[in-house]
Amino acid sequence: MARRQDVDALIAAAREGQPRAIARLISLVEDASPQLREVMSALMPFTGSAHVIGITGSPGVGKSTSTSALVTLLRAEGKRVGVLAIDPSSPFSGGALLGDRIRMQEHSSDPGVYIRSMASRGHLGGLSWSTPQALRVLDAAGFDVIILETVGVGQSEIEVVGVADTVIVLLAPGMGDGIQAAKAGILEIGDIFVVNKADRDGASATSRELRHMIQLADRPADAWRPPVLKTVASRGEGVPEEAAAISEHFEWASKSGELAARRTTRAAEEVEAIALAAIRRRLGDVGSDERLRELAAQVVAAKIDPYAAADTLLEGLS
Amino acid sequence: MARRQDVDALIAAAREGQPRAIARLISLVEDASPQLREVMSALMPFTGSAHVIGITGSPGVGKSTSTSALVTLLRAEGKRVGVLAIDPSSPFSGGALLGDRIRMQEHSSDPGVYIRSMASRGHLGGLSWSTPQALRVLDAAGFDVIILETVGVGQSEIEVVGVADTVIVLLAPGMGDGIQAAKAGILEIGDIFVVNKADRDGASATSRELRHMIQLADRPADAWRPPVLKTVASRGEGVPEEAAAISEHFEWASKSGELAARRTTRAAEEVEAIALAAIRRRLGDVGSDERLRELAAQVVAAKIDPYAAADTLLEGLS
Repeated sequence: MARRQDVDALIAAAREGQPRAIARLISLVEDASPQLREVMSALMPFTGSAHVIGITGSPGVGKSTSTSALVTLLRAEGKRVGVLAIDPSSPFSGGALLGDRIRMQEHSSDPGVYIRSMASRGHLGGLSWSTPQALRVLDAAGFDVIILETVGVGQSEIEVVGVADTVIVLLAPGMGDGIQAAKAGILEIGDIFVVNKADRDGASATSRELRHMIQLADRPADAWRPPVLKTVASRGEGVPEEAAAISEHFEWASKSGELAARRTTRAAEEVEAIALAAIRRRLGDVGSDERLRELAAQVVAAKIDPYAAADTLLEGLS
Repeated sequence: MARRQDVDALIAAAREGQPRAIARLISLVEDASPQLREVMSALMPFTGSAHVIGITGSPGVGKSTSTSALVTLLRAEGKRVGVLAIDPSSPFSGGALLGDRIRMQEHSSDPGVYIRSMASRGHLGGLSWSTPQALRVLDAAGFDVIILETVGVGQSEIEVVGVADTVIVLLAPGMGDGIQAAKAGILEIGDIFVVNKADRDGASATSRELRHMIQLADRPADAWRPPVLKTVASRGEGVPEEAAAISEHFEWASKSGELAARRTTRAAEEVEAIALAAIRRRLGDVGSDERLRELAAQVVAAKIDPYAAADTLLEGLS
C-alpha cells in the first residue's frame, strides 16, 4: 500500500532529523487524521528510548530560558533534543493565545534540536489529546531527550507533565512560591525543584520554604528525595548541576522500577483516553448532540433528573 | 418505602433552611451514595428557580471578601443565599489543601445563608463531579441566589463557573491582570468584570486594559457588553453597583434566551458526565484496572500501539 510506504519514508526522514518530516508526522497525529492509526502503528517499533523531562512552573519563572539553557548543555553532550512547549489555551476559543511566539531562537538553526508549540486544548479522560502522540513521534524520531514544557496551571497539564520520566518544578524568588505551588498541585509531582533567578532577593528563603514543604510530605525510606537547586538560567549558572540531578534521577528511576511504572501509567492513561474517545463517538452516534440537548432541556424543565437522562442516552449503546 | 420518606423529610427540612438537612443532602450527593439517584429524583420538582452567580479570579484578588460583601447586600434585600466555595485540590493527593479554613465567619450565624467548601477533585468529561449536584441541592432548598466561588486555575473549574447564569471575573490592580486572565482563559467567560481593591495604585490602568481586551473580542451587535466595575469589597464600596449589574445581566439573559441556553448546556454537560462515568464503570468491569495496565505495559514494550490496545479494551464492551 502506497500510503504505508509514505508513512515509512516519513519516519525514516524524521529519524535522520529532517524537521519537515517530523512536523508532518506531528500534524498527522495532532489533527487525528485518517492515517493516524497507521502512523502510530508504524512508529511503535522505534519508541521507548527517549528520556522525557517535564518542566513546569508559573508564568514568569523563566521556563523558556531554563529549557533553552538545558538544551544548550545537552547539545554540548552530543544529545539530540526535542522540545514540546504546551501552551494553555482557552477552553472557549480553542486557540493557543501565545502559541505562535517564536521560542528559543538561538536553537532554531541547530539540526539536533526540534521545537514545537502545542495547544493543550481538548482533553478526554484527563489527558491532553495530542501530547502523548506527539511525544511518540519525537521518541520514534530518535531524540535522546524530549523536554515537555508547560505552564503549571490546569489539571490536565499537570497530569501530562506529572507522568514525564523526570519532572522539574521551576520557581522564582518572591512569588509566594511554596503556597502557590501547593495550590496548583505541582509540589507533589516534582522530582527536582529549581529556584531560577537565584540572583534575586529571596532565593534562599524560597529554597528553605521549599525544602521545608518537601520534608513535610510522607515518603517511604527508599523513595527519591527531591533536591532543591538554584539557577540563573539566563547566564547558565547552576545548569550543569541541574543536568546532573536529572541524570541521577533517571538512573534512580531506571533501577527502582519507577521509570517502568510511570511509563506504564502514561500508556494506561493514553489507552483509556483513546477508548473513552471512541465511546464518546459512539455515544455521539447513538445520542447525537441534538439528543443530548433535548434531554438536557428536559432536565432544565425538571421533567427528568440527570441520571434518568443519562440512562436514556446510554440505552442505545449496548 | 422508608428511605424515600427520609429523603422527602430531609428535603422539607432543607427548604425550611435547616443547615444540617442541607449538609446531609450535599453529603449524599457528594459521596455518590447508593441513595444518590433517589435523592436527585426527589429534588428535581423543587429546582429551577435559583440564580447561579459564578465568581472567579486568581488567588489574592479578594474573592472571599467580595462574596461576603455581596452576601451582605443580598441579605439586606431579604434574599436567601447559598455559597459553594470550590477549592482547587491536588490531583495527586486528592485532598483540598485549604478547604478547612473557616470562610466568611460574619455570615456563619445567619440562617438565611448557607456556606459550603467543596473540593474540585475528580472530574469526568470535564465537569467537576459533585458541583452540579450540590448546586441542585441548594436550588431545591429554595435559595434565591447561589454563589459559586472558584479560584480561576484549572480547566474544569473554568468550565464549572463558565456555565453559571452570571459570571463575575474578579481582578486586582497590578497583577499583570489582562494577560494573566487571558492566559487562564477567564477573560472570555466574564459577564461582569470587577477590579477589586480599587483604592490601590493601578486600578484605573487595569480597568482600561480590561476594557480594551473586551473590545477586541468579536461580539454580535445584540450581545451582552460586559461592564468593568471597581470595588473595594472590604469596605463595601461599589458593591451596590455590582449587584445592579448582576440584576441587569440576569434580566438580559432571561429575555435573550441566553439563560435557557446556558442552563441547557450546564445540564447537557452534567448528563454527559454521568453517562461517561457509567461507561467508565462498565469499562472497569470489562477491562479492569489490571487489564488496562497489562495492555499499557505492552504499549510501553512497543508490542502494540495505543489504538490497538484501546480496541482490545473495548472488545468486551458491546
